[in-house]
Amino acid sequence: MEAQFDFGMIGIGVMGSNLLLNMADKGYAAIGFDLKQERADKLEASATKGTTVKGTTNVEEMVRALKKPRKIMMLVPAGKPVDDVINNLLPHLEKDDIVIDGGNSYYKDTQKRVDYLQPKGIHFFGMGVSGGEAGARFGPSMMPGGDKEAYQYLKPILEAIAAKADGKPCVAYMGNGPAGHYVKMTHNGIEYAMMQLISEAYDLMKRGAGYTNDDLHTIFLKWNADSLQSFLIEITAEVFRTLDTETEDGTDYLVDHILDKAGSKGTGKWTSQDAMDLPVSIPTIDMAVALRDLSVYKNQRVEASKLYQPEIGKINSPSAELIQDLEDALYFTFLIAYAQGLSLLAKASVDYKFDIPLPDVVQIWKGGCIIRSSLLYQFDKAFAANATLENVLLHPTIAEILKSKEAALRRIISLTINARIPVAAMSSALAYFDAYCSERLPTNLIQAQRDFFGAHTYQRIDKEGVFHTEWHEGG
Amino acid sequence: MEAQFDFGMIGIGVMGSNLLLNMADKGYAAIGFDLKQERADKLEASATKGTTVKGTTNVEEMVRALKKPRKIMMLVPAGKPVDDVINNLLPHLEKDDIVIDGGNSYYKDTQKRVDYLQPKGIHFFGMGVSGGEAGARFGPSMMPGGDKEAYQYLKPILEAIAAKADGKPCVAYMGNGPAGHYVKMTHNGIEYAMMQLISEAYDLMKRGAGYTNDDLHTIFLKWNADSLQSFLIEITAEVFRTLDTETEDGTDYLVDHILDKAGSKGTGKWTSQDAMDLPVSIPTIDMAVALRDLSVYKNQRVEASKLYQPEIGKINSPSAELIQDLEDALYFTFLIAYAQGLSLLAKASVDYKFDIPLPDVVQIWKGGCIIRSSLLYQFDKAFAANATLENVLLHPTIAEILKSKEAALRRIISLTINARIPVAAMSSALAYFDAYCSERLPTNLIQAQRDFFGAHTYQRIDKEGVFHTEWHEGG
Repeated sequence: MEAQFDFGMIGIGVMGSNLLLNMADKGYAAIGFDLKQERADKLEASATKGTTVKGTTNVEEMVRALKKPRKIMMLVPAGKPVDDVINNLLPHLEKDDIVIDGGNSYYKDTQKRVDYLQPKGIHFFGMGVSGGEAGARFGPSMMPGGDKEAYQYLKPILEAIAAKADGKPCVAYMGNGPAGHYVKMTHNGIEYAMMQLISEAYDLMKRGAGYTNDDLHTIFLKWNADSLQSFLIEITAEVFRTLDTETEDGTDYLVDHILDKAGSKGTGKWTSQDAMDLPVSIPTIDMAVALRDLSVYKNQRVEASKLYQPEIGKINSPSAELIQDLEDALYFTFLIAYAQGLSLLAKASVDYKFDIPLPDVVQIWKGGCIIRSSLLYQFDKAFAANATLENVLLHPTIAEILKSKEAALRRIISLTINARIPVAAMSSALAYFDAYCSERLPTNLIQAQRDFFGAHTYQRIDKEGVFHTEWHEGG
Repeated sequence: MEAQFDFGMIGIGVMGSNLLLNMADKGYAAIGFDLKQERADKLEASATKGTTVKGTTNVEEMVRALKKPRKIMMLVPAGKPVDDVINNLLPHLEKDDIVIDGGNSYYKDTQKRVDYLQPKGIHFFGMGVSGGEAGARFGPSMMPGGDKEAYQYLKPILEAIAAKADGKPCVAYMGNGPAGHYVKMTHNGIEYAMMQLISEAYDLMKRGAGYTNDDLHTIFLKWNADSLQSFLIEITAEVFRTLDTETEDGTDYLVDHILDKAGSKGTGKWTSQDAMDLPVSIPTIDMAVALRDLSVYKNQRVEASKLYQPEIGKINSPSAELIQDLEDALYFTFLIAYAQGLSLLAKASVDYKFDIPLPDVVQIWKGGCIIRSSLLYQFDKAFAANATLENVLLHPTIAEILKSKEAALRRIISLTINARIPVAAMSSALAYFDAYCSERLPTNLIQAQRDFFGAHTYQRIDKEGVFHTEWHEGG
């Protein structure tokens, strides 16, 4: 076979196949490798008529069929499978070939792979892909990072298949080394926070205010047509009208039959863990991780609910006001979740020398990905004014919005505190906001305590230097 | 020199020297090594008359002077220095000698050292030591973990020098491998949470209610004489009456001159990061870490406070009621902080095969260490009934206490929400409590969303198995 294909894929499950089919629709010749013949067959059978799509079970054949520099992407589970693929590919590759890991690999692993392949002349890219199966087929958001020079070869194909927001593609070069996977990790951290926030609004409306799934469907539909327009709000509206095909008459709502134990793949956890290393404060993402973790201990929760028998307070606010307050509260806390994630990227960009273009991050999150929302447009002015802004809360446009919605959030949290409904992430967002806007925090006391018992020293507000006090004698 | 010494120490700064002097006072012959002659001299000069204390700058001399099996402890900075000491010691050691790392090493490093030294016949112990300089001299709390057989040789000396609570020593075998360092790490995580909680009470009383340092001194003194009796409350009372010797007339209170940027040595962060790996939900410790991290961004906070100009609401509650509510709120949230830390130990004990004796953990934290408090006695019944209790919240004695104080906490948080005072850790403790007592959390929605966009599947409440729905068509 002569070298005629533009792009190769290793791992042609639904995601990998859909990306190839998407490329083929845009005029690129696409080839996919899988150990299973039926997957290769299925890929070819799924191709749009008149497009060039091939499946193979021979990795060497695929490599030889690709134009140089070769562009090969893998979509395999994170961890050892990625290294296995790399090592299987290596004998067949040549200098300047490009290998892309499109999975959710841990960014430190990606850095190791960059370091391993760079001396061999292979350009390794870590690329976050968001949007699920439908996104892969019709327009995902993609976050590639790696060798900037080599990105020119990927750019046309990726821009062709990416989702568009305002006509601009939702893909851009995200920075050096593992920057792409780092941005995707942070995207997922924000996703955890937004999902937790939505679930808290749901809890308040269901356990507190007694709304039905029908009510909830209507409310989320309204929000999605209004200020909260976003993928997650949109699918949540759909969830509340989805019936359960497993039950006998099929008239129950499915959501009520789903177990309340959250799964997770680790990206949210990585976001929190890495933020603590930098350190950057992202308590709303931390809280989303902690609440998913807590949900898993279902047996303990059942036991505790018997022991404590908490009486969930009925929330009797007028419906229109409650729903408007909740919309504003979600808007406020979504902004905080984005702000925390973006502040993490701003710090990582500098400390890890990733050189992440924050305005491009906002652009490529506007379409195709799970956290896409109309709220992201609010950050344009902030990053246009300062492309390395440490925290979007520092821009007047964001300040104006938050100030207009904070009263609603305070009302919502006050309601839930007395009703015994845990709004952990909402509370964390408000506390973060109030602490961030505090010129003076009570941390001076913590520094005094640390110096008292551990001689850890402290700084002063009125002079330079490092001080220690013999506290026992100071009184 | 013939082998006549009972215990050797490497690193005789204040902590190391104080531990040796403490041993010597209890009748043990103690020898310390340091590269600096003046430290060796100072150690000897500090010995109580009639006790056997020697300092040396020759490590081989120290090893030869020790009775077998030798007991050698190091108190050096965590990381490479610990490995350097081990490698310097090794040529001089014999089978069955015991080496103790008394620093705040990361427990995974301790595991590596255990694995390295075990084949050489050396028993390596990781031991957390808490209580600061005064504790080391007159009674620390110590958390040793390692080879259970070898512990018999350490036990008499450690019990002799440990703090006592109810006549029982605040030292006990904490479990296998790096269990000692793991327990100490968790101790420090709880410490972070308690300090953050105290600082939030301080913030409310100072910024919100306008109390003076004199008032605060009196209030903390009262609390320490009452239900909150604890080391941290006690020293906080002292902090508020400590005058500033740096200012000209020395009549200002020192605490007001301390910069509100928190330092940290990493143990709190490790606790949160490791809890996420297990996973165990410890959001109040996470929040304490996040708030310390946020405090560091002072420049941003100053800028934000100018932009947002938050008006701190005046808290005008009658003083007696406010102080009683705050006492109850702190009691409640301290219990939650302990509960989260102990639940982490319960899980780590099983998952990592540490086999941590939880009743002993509670016992040795009752005296000598930074988180010692009268609250710890409340856990005795719970662990007497079940030594591997997964969460102390599940015991009726704890439930009774929490139920009696939760209304106060809800009142305090409601006050602060409207006053714009961030009580991040208190809110996290309440949310944790309310979520833990919820038989049904809204996490079913999160699972629906995950299955919707990522085909991550879900479980059901009414049948076994793993399910996936084609959500788009389900409506």
